[in-house]
Amino acid sequence: MTVPTSTNDGLLSFVSTRSLERKQVSFAGLPLPTSITKHKSPISLGGGRPHSGFFPVNKITLEVSSSPFNADTTEKVISKKDSKTLDITKGFQYGPTEGHPELISFAKSLINRVNEPGYEDWDLTLTNGTGDSLHKIFNLIINPGDVILIENYTYVPVISNIINYGGIVVPVELNFEKGGIDVGKFEKLLENWESGPYKHFKRPKGLYTIPTGQNPSGLTQSHEDRKKIYDLSSEYEFLIIEDDPYGYIQLSEYFDGDFNKFSTNDYSVDKYIEEDLPNSYIQYDTEGRVLRLESFSKIFAPGSRLGFIVGHAKFIKRIIDHANVSTRAPSGISQLIVNSVIEQFDGVDGWLNWNIQISEEYTARKNLLIKTLKSSESFKKGQFDIIEPKSGMFLSININFPNDDDDEEEDYRDQVEQLRYKALEQGVIVVLGKNFTTDESFAKKARFIRTTIATQDSDEEILEAGRRLSSAIKLYFESV
Amino acid sequence: MTVPTSTNDGLLSFVSTRSLERKQVSFAGLPLPTSITKHKSPISLGGGRPHSGFFPVNKITLEVSSSPFNADTTEKVISKKDSKTLDITKGFQYGPTEGHPELISFAKSLINRVNEPGYEDWDLTLTNGTGDSLHKIFNLIINPGDVILIENYTYVPVISNIINYGGIVVPVELNFEKGGIDVGKFEKLLENWESGPYKHFKRPKGLYTIPTGQNPSGLTQSHEDRKKIYDLSSEYEFLIIEDDPYGYIQLSEYFDGDFNKFSTNDYSVDKYIEEDLPNSYIQYDTEGRVLRLESFSKIFAPGSRLGFIVGHAKFIKRIIDHANVSTRAPSGISQLIVNSVIEQFDGVDGWLNWNIQISEEYTARKNLLIKTLKSSESFKKGQFDIIEPKSGMFLSININFPNDDDDEEEDYRDQVEQLRYKALEQGVIVVLGKNFTTDESFAKKARFIRTTIATQDSDEEILEAGRRLSSAIKLYFESV
Repeated sequence: MTVPTSTNDGLLSFVSTRSLERKQVSFAGLPLPTSITKHKSPISLGGGRPHSGFFPVNKITLEVSSSPFNADTTEKVISKKDSKTLDITKGFQYGPTEGHPELISFAKSLINRVNEPGYEDWDLTLTNGTGDSLHKIFNLIINPGDVILIENYTYVPVISNIINYGGIVVPVELNFEKGGIDVGKFEKLLENWESGPYKHFKRPKGLYTIPTGQNPSGLTQSHEDRKKIYDLSSEYEFLIIEDDPYGYIQLSEYFDGDFNKFSTNDYSVDKYIEEDLPNSYIQYDTEGRVLRLESFSKIFAPGSRLGFIVGHAKFIKRIIDHANVSTRAPSGISQLIVNSVIEQFDGVDGWLNWNIQISEEYTARKNLLIKTLKSSESFKKGQFDIIEPKSGMFLSININFPNDDDDEEEDYRDQVEQLRYKALEQGVIVVLGKNFTTDESFAKKARFIRTTIATQDSDEEILEAGRRLSSAIKLYFESV
Repeated sequence: MTVPTSTNDGLLSFVSTRSLERKQVSFAGLPLPTSITKHKSPISLGGGRPHSGFFPVNKITLEVSSSPFNADTTEKVISKKDSKTLDITKGFQYGPTEGHPELISFAKSLINRVNEPGYEDWDLTLTNGTGDSLHKIFNLIINPGDVILIENYTYVPVISNIINYGGIVVPVELNFEKGGIDVGKFEKLLENWESGPYKHFKRPKGLYTIPTGQNPSGLTQSHEDRKKIYDLSSEYEFLIIEDDPYGYIQLSEYFDGDFNKFSTNDYSVDKYIEEDLPNSYIQYDTEGRVLRLESFSKIFAPGSRLGFIVGHAKFIKRIIDHANVSTRAPSGISQLIVNSVIEQFDGVDGWLNWNIQISEEYTARKNLLIKTLKSSESFKKGQFDIIEPKSGMFLSININFPNDDDDEEEDYRDQVEQLRYKALEQGVIVVLGKNFTTDESFAKKARFIRTTIATQDSDEEILEAGRRLSSAIKLYFESV
C-alpha cells in the first residue's frame, strides 16, 4: 500500500523549523555537460580517501559464539604472539561518554609530547571524528548573529555547522606565496572591523583554521605567523578553532632525485617533533582560547570515526555534557581496535614512528607527482605553477590562464570548469578551488585546482595521473 | 602555568545560550547517608549492562602492519575456516552517512521479516545507537512548546533530548496489571485535552513509548492496546516514537520447574515471529506516523554504538541530512564487526536464532530470580508482589508498604529510599521506580523497584541477589 499523497504531505507539519531550514554546503562540482566524453578508466586526484595501504591493520580475525556464554569470560581477553586480542568484555560494553580511559590517556600523552598547551587546566574528549567535533564546538559557542572567521578557501562543509546555528562566516585571505592566512591583511581586517566591509556584523567570536596542509590549498602557516595570529586572538578576544587532521603528515622538500629525509638513518621521533611538526596554536595558548581538533581518519583510518578535542577543561566539560544528551560515547569497538594498535606500537613514540612512515610514503608520492608535472611541456611553457605543500595530502596547482585582461575583474570560474572537462576527457579527476568558498568574489579569483596524493594504488598511477593532468592543461591552452 | 581566574571566567562569555541552558535528566539515586554501612561484595540488580556472555564474539585477533603498504590490498580480505576476516579496505574507509549498504540491507530484511510497515514508502538509517536516534528524532520534530507524551515512568534521559529543544513532556499512566500504557486513561486524556490538566499546552505532537519490556517497569503492551493506541494517534494526529531495544528478548511464562519454551525441540524462528515477538506499531501504520528505533546494544553489544531508525522516507531523509552536518556516519569498524557476525550467522534467520538463544538465557535468569523471591519469607508474608515481565531484562517488584493511610495522599519516596539502604546493607543494588519520572505526583506513588537480570556472572549470583533482596525487604518491614 502506498501512502495517500495528502497524508504524505501532512507529515511535513510534524517537522521542526530547525529541520526545514537546515542547509548543507558541499564542494561537489557542477554537473557535466552532455558534450563531454569521460575517459573510460579515470584516475582520481580528487577525493581525500587515504589508500587502505595507510591503514595500520592488515587483518582482523573474528571468532563468533555459537551460543551465549559458550566461552569463559576470561577467554575473551587473550594475547597471542604477533597479534593482539582485544579485551572484548570492555570494548563491547558501555563506556564513558568522553572515551575509554586507555585511549584518553594515550591522547593526553601525545599532546604532552608534541603540542603541550601553555596552561595547566586543559582537558580532552574523544568524538566521532572531526565532523562531529566541529558540530559540537559550534553548538557550544554560536548564538545567532555570532561571526566566525574562516579561510577564504576552506573545507566548506564546516560552514553548514556554523550557519545552521545562526552563525555568520567571514572569509580571511590565504597567502599562497607565504603559506596560510595572510597575517597583514588579517590584522587590518581586525583593526578596522568597525569601518570595514563587515561593520554591520558583531566582532568575530572565533577563527576556524586548518593551519597545516590546509584543505584545499595544501598550505602550511609559519610559526611566526601562528604566534602573531595567536596574539591577535588575545588582543581582539576571539577563539581559535584549530582543525588539524593532516598535521602529522609531514613532507620533505622536493628536489630532483630520490632523497626522502624520513628514510634517512639518523631521522628520529625527536627530530620529527622538534624540526618538522609545526607548533599547535595551543602551545602559545595561556588563556584557554584555543580548541585543537585531532582526527584518526587520515593517520589510522576514516572508518574509525574517532577524533578528539583538546581545550580548556571548562569547554571540554560542556562538550561532554552535550554528548551525554546527543551522540553519547564514540564506538567502543573502534576505540579498542585503535587502542590495541597503539599498544602494539608501544605507545606514543611508536605511534609517532608510524606517522613518520606515513610521512615518508606521502613525501615519495608528492615528489613523484611534482617530478612528472615539472617534466611536462605544459609546465615548461609556464601554463601552471605548483604550490609545493610542506604537510598533508593536498597539492595545489595554479593555472596561469592566457587571456587575463587587466582592465576587467578576474573571473576564472568558466575557465577552470572548461579545464576540468578537459581533465575528465584525459582521464584524471581533480577538484576546483572555486568550489571551496561560498564568497562569490573569491570563487571568481580561484585559478587553482586541488590534487590529492592519498588514494592512488601505485607509483605508475601517480605518474600517469600527472601526465594526464599536464596534457589536459596543454590541450586546454591549445583550445583557447 | 594556571590560567588567571579572571580570564578563566571570561571564557564563559564565548559559550552559547544553548550550552548554558542545557539540562541533563538522569535516574541516579540520592547520595547515601553516612550512617549506611555498605556490604563489602554487593551484587548488582541495578544497571542494564548485558553480561559479556551475551556478546556474540569470543575473540578478535588483530594483525598490525609494521609499515604502510606492507601487505597486499587483497590480503586485507581473507576468509578462514571457523573465523571470518573482515573487508578492512571497506570498513576502515569513509562510508555512507546512513550506513554501509550491507548492514542497511540486513536491517531492511529484518524489518520485512519481522515488522513489515503497513505502507511502502519507508526507509531506514543507521545511527550511533538509540541515544543518538532519540536526539536526532527530537531535533527533527520539536519546535519550542511542542508536547511529547511519555510513559509516567520511563527512561528519563530522553526527557533531556525533548526539553533541550524547548519541548514539553506530559506523562501518560502505565497500567501495571494489564501492561503498558493505560489505554482507557490515555483516550480520556486525548479526548478532554482542552479541558484537562494540560489545556494550557498545545495538543501533543508525539508519543514516546517503550512498548516491549519497558524501562523501568518491564511491562509489555498487548496487541489489542497497540492497535487502539495507533488508532488514537491517527485520530488525534500525533507521531508514535517506538523505542524498542529489548523487544527481541522474549521471556516464556514462569512456572515452578525447569521448563523453558525456547529450549524445546519444535521451537522455531517462525514460532518466535508469529507467537512471541510483539507487533511493532509500524505494522499498523499506513500513514508514516511511526518512527521505530532498534538498537544493537542489548542483543549484540553496547560498545557497537549502532542502532537504526525505521520510518517514512521523508523523515529518514531529513535525519540523514542532520547526520551529514553533525555526527556523520556511525563507526565503519563497528559496522563491519556487526555485519561480519551476522553473515556468519547466515543472515536474518540465523540472527533471529541468536536472539532466541538470548531469550532462552534471559528466561532462565528471570525464572531463577522469581523462584528465589517467591520462596522467601518476605514474599509469603505478602510484603511484595512480583510483576512478571513478558520481554526484556527488567523485573519490577511492588512493595506492599505496611503503613498505608487511606486518608492521606500516597508518598512512598522516603520509604523506598529506606528500603534501598537496607538492600545496600544486605549487599544488593536496585534502582527505585521514583527516579524514573520527573513528575512529583508519580514519584510519590512509585512503590516499585527495578531489578535487572542482565549483568550477573552466574546462577548462584542471581540466587544470592534474590535472597539478599527479600531479606532486605523483610528487615525493612521489621524496622518500621
